[in-house]
Formats: sequence, structure tokens, C-alpha cells
Amino acid sequence: MQVTKTVEATRSLVKQWKREGKTIGLVPTMGFLHEGHASLIRKCREENDIVVVSDFVNPTQFGPNEDLEAYPRDFERDCALCEKMGADLIFNPQPEEMYQDPCAYVSIHTLSDTLCGKTRPIHFKGVCTVVSKLFHIAAPDKAYFGQKDAQQLAIIRKMVRDLNFDVEIVGCPIVREADGLAKSSRNTYLNDEERKAALCLSRAVKRGQEVIRTGCESEAVLKEMRAVIEAEPLARVDYVSVVDALTMQPVERVEKDVLVAMAVYIGVIIGCIAQYTVMPLAA
Amino acid sequence: MQVTKTVEATRSLVKQWKREGKTIGLVPTMGFLHEGHASLIRKCREENDIVVVSDFVNPTQFGPNEDLEAYPRDFERDCALCEKMGADLIFNPQPEEMYQDPCAYVSIHTLSDTLCGKTRPIHFKGVCTVVSKLFHIAAPDKAYFGQKDAQQLAIIRKMVRDLNFDVEIVGCPIVREADGLAKSSRNTYLNDEERKAALCLSRAVKRGQEVIRTGCESEAVLKEMRAVIEAEPLARVDYVSVVDALTMQPVERVEKDVLVAMAVYIGVIIGCIAQYTVMPLAA
Repeated sequence: MQVTKTVEATRSLVKQWKREGKTIGLVPTMGFLHEGHASLIRKCREENDIVVVSDFVNPTQFGPNEDLEAYPRDFERDCALCEKMGADLIFNPQPEEMYQDPCAYVSIHTLSDTLCGKTRPIHFKGVCTVVSKLFHIAAPDKAYFGQKDAQQLAIIRKMVRDLNFDVEIVGCPIVREADGLAKSSRNTYLNDEERKAALCLSRAVKRGQEVIRTGCESEAVLKEMRAVIEAEPLARVDYVSVVDALTMQPVERVEKDVLVAMAVYIGVIIGCIAQYTVMPLAA
Repeated sequence: MQVTKTVEATRSLVKQWKREGKTIGLVPTMGFLHEGHASLIRKCREENDIVVVSDFVNPTQFGPNEDLEAYPRDFERDCALCEKMGADLIFNPQPEEMYQDPCAYVSIHTLSDTLCGKTRPIHFKGVCTVVSKLFHIAAPDKAYFGQKDAQQLAIIRKMVRDLNFDVEIVGCPIVREADGLAKSSRNTYLNDEERKAALCLSRAVKRGQEVIRTGCESEAVLKEMRAVIEAEPLARVDYVSVVDALTMQPVERVEKDVLVAMAVYIGVIIGCIAQYTVMPLAA
């Protein structure tokens, strides 16, 4: 496995692989890799000749009061995991390598104005910009993103269509701890008490799945889910919402292709833990 | 020479050429081709295995009161010119092929706020977005733009750097009519009287070149140039400005890498004729 720190070195490797006719898969990450990332890398390994993992805490997707400095980092452990998972390259640039007096950016309206976009107004502009840059640098045939960040995934899919990126976006299922908490680098912020409190999220998901059915009112589902979370004193709901899975706009009734999304603060953690959940309708 | 109307057909040809190891040059145009475009295609022909010309009047770069409907079109004549110049492909999509409920876009700050950006606030966002799309569709090694639209050229160069597009941008000199007027598709808007009046632009450039010298005050040059244009009753100055050639910000003194840019309305034409001029300093 190789490690690159510069755009040029990465591009040079990618061009060589392309010349050899190899297909390239990209797993964009902010590092501090966990089993969720591992599942993306595994899927990528299965579907491509070359697996590139980018490992970069992107400053432009953090707001001024968010957790850029506190965001957990452990590059050595990331390297070990990537090596074990059979990655061919980790691209690990410093912010100065990625941003030099930046003026141009990629953004998206409508899909970025709702849900997490309300409390994090610049977040998805940062995400779209860095993902565009990574696509231009690594020139992947396929790129892998977790369904946990469902709004991000919907935005990237729409961005790819709107801007004609020649990349296939692959969404991968949420990976959970044994007790139900979705794996997330930010779980490391939680102390023991908060870690227990955070289980209200997966309990709310479970409760939602019990009551949800095609053709029911969204409010019926949301009421039950909110009740579960509000029973937990350390939890503060940012939002729980039933939205169209493509446009991220709220819908009043649960029909085909809806997404139930939520973001909940646990304790006094900096930033927001977004625990999105795609809810497949009962068959 | 082939003609494509869809993204998919274009991409399919491009991929075949790439597989054959061929280099691709792109000349993005809005059609109604003239000698200026021909010079871009000629340069592109010299430097690449494959020459792709895009011929698309991009609606998103026109403001609500601009000349989208009136913009001249003659696709048959464009085809004949491209064929003659040795192009391999004209990509000529309809707006519906390029934009389907678009949400994502590419934009740029600072460089787009000055000069033409002041009177055309959405123009460069439209340009950045469509050029990004064309880069993703045609995957060029090199792309060719005229120096006449100097602010556009500076913006595209900066966009390519900031977003890590793997494309080399080639700027090509202004091509002028025998009497000095820069070739432009919009010259067709001018009646005989306005056509004569428009010569105040190249006269102003000539006057500017006479007085310009390294280390002089910008105002000294601008005063002379404005006087030439203001002597013409049918001309109305939008701006004449000395700016840094990279940042497009006004500079007080003429030093290395400045650009003298102007936009002037002639008669009652719809929209603005931007007659940018790069002024090389006297050797």
C-alpha cells in the first residue's frame, strides 16, 4: 500500500493505473476509521482493480463553532486498517495542499437547505467542493459513501448528475455497534453516560420501523420517534423529519422513497452527531 | 466529423478515443462561430489528437434582461467551419439535455465580483458551471479560450487550480476585423452606424497602448482611454479598469501582470459587448 501527501503524486499514480486499464474505486473519509469505513473499503475492494482511500479532515465543511480542532485523528491506525483491508493507496494531504487561497467552490441549493443544512449552513458547500476536488484528483470509476450521512449521499448523487461527473456513486448500509449505536468517528466524544444515552437514537429508529407503513401520515411516525428521544434527558433533538429521499424536502405522508432523518445532540458535545437512517418500507 | 446531441453519445466517443491513447482538446463555444473561434480550433488542432468543439448557447450565464433569445445561432454554418478546420466532433446539446432540474453549481468569489460581474451578477456562476460540465463530459487534456473574455479566462484558470481539474487551459489572442474591431458573435447586433461607433473601442486600446508604460499611474491610462470612448455619442462605458491579471482587483499603478479591461455598450443593443483587452507592457 502506498501513501501520498500531494495532489501531484496521487495523480501520477492514478494516471499510471489508468494507462494500465485498471478501474479505480475511491473511499473519501475524514480518517479515524471504524467498521463503517471498513465496510466501504471492503465493498470498494470487491468492485475495483485499485482502491484509493482519502484520509483528510476537510476544514471547509466545519462551521466556525464546530469541532474541526477536536475532530479525532489517528493516521497510523488508519494506515493499518487500510493495509489490512487491501487498499492500494491512502491520500493524506495537509489542508495547505488542498486549499491555496481558494475562490472557486461547488455548492447545491434546495437539498442543502433542509435538515443538517439548517444548523450547518456552509457544511454541504464544503462537502461538495472537497468531493469534487477528490474526484478530479483520483478520477475514480466508483466512489463509496455511507448511508448514515443520508443527506450527504443524496447531495453527492445529485451533484454528480447535475455536473456530469463520470463517477458511479455507491451507497453502503449503516454499520452499528452490537447494542445498536451507529458507528461514527464522533462517538469518541461520548463519555460512558452519554454513550448509554445515545442508544435512544437506535431505539427511536426501531420504534419508527414498528409503526411505519406505506400510506401513513408522517406525523404518526415522528411523534413516536420523538417520544423515545425526548424520554432521554441527555438528548436534544435537532430535527426528526420524513423527507423525499431524492429532494430532501419534507413530505406529509409516508410513501415510496421517503427517508426518515434525524440529528440529535447528546450531552454537551461540540458539533452535531447526525444519525441518519434510511427506513425501508415494510414489504 | 461527427455531431453529438447527448452527453452519453459524447462520452462514449471520448472514452473510445481515450482507450486508444489519444489526447483530447476542447473548444467550448456558444456557436455562431467567427475567426476568433477558428483561431482556437486551429490551435487545438495543432496540439491534440482529437478536437472537440462544443456549440451550446448556455442559458444559465444569461441574466433575466440579457440577450438569450436574441443571441445569434447558425448551426449549419458552424458545422461547415468546424469541418473545414479539421474538428473531429461537435457537441451540440439542447438546454434540456444539459439541465434537468439543476441544483448543483460551480461558482467563484472575488474574481467574479468585479468588472463584468458587477452588471452581470449570475454570469460567471453560469460560465463556471457549464465549463465544469463540459470538462466532465469531454474529459479534455487541454481546453481553449479567447483572451477577449479576459475575466472569464482568469476565472476559468483559477477554477481549474482551485478544484484540481486535470485540464490545461490555453488562452488565445484576440482576433480583430481589418479595421480593428474585435471579432464577436454579438457584433451582428450592430447596425452600420453602431458598427462604425464600435471602433472607438480599438481606438481606445490603441490610445492606451501609446500612453501605457511600466510604473505609471493607472488613472493616467484610463483617462486617455475614457476620453476616446466618451467622444463617441453612441458609446456608453460600463467600465474601463486596470486590474491585477490574476485576481481581477483594481490596481492603482500599471505594473507587471496588469490587465486593462473594458466593457462598453454601443447603441441600444441588448446585453453588453465585452471587449476585454490584455495589454502587454511595452518591452
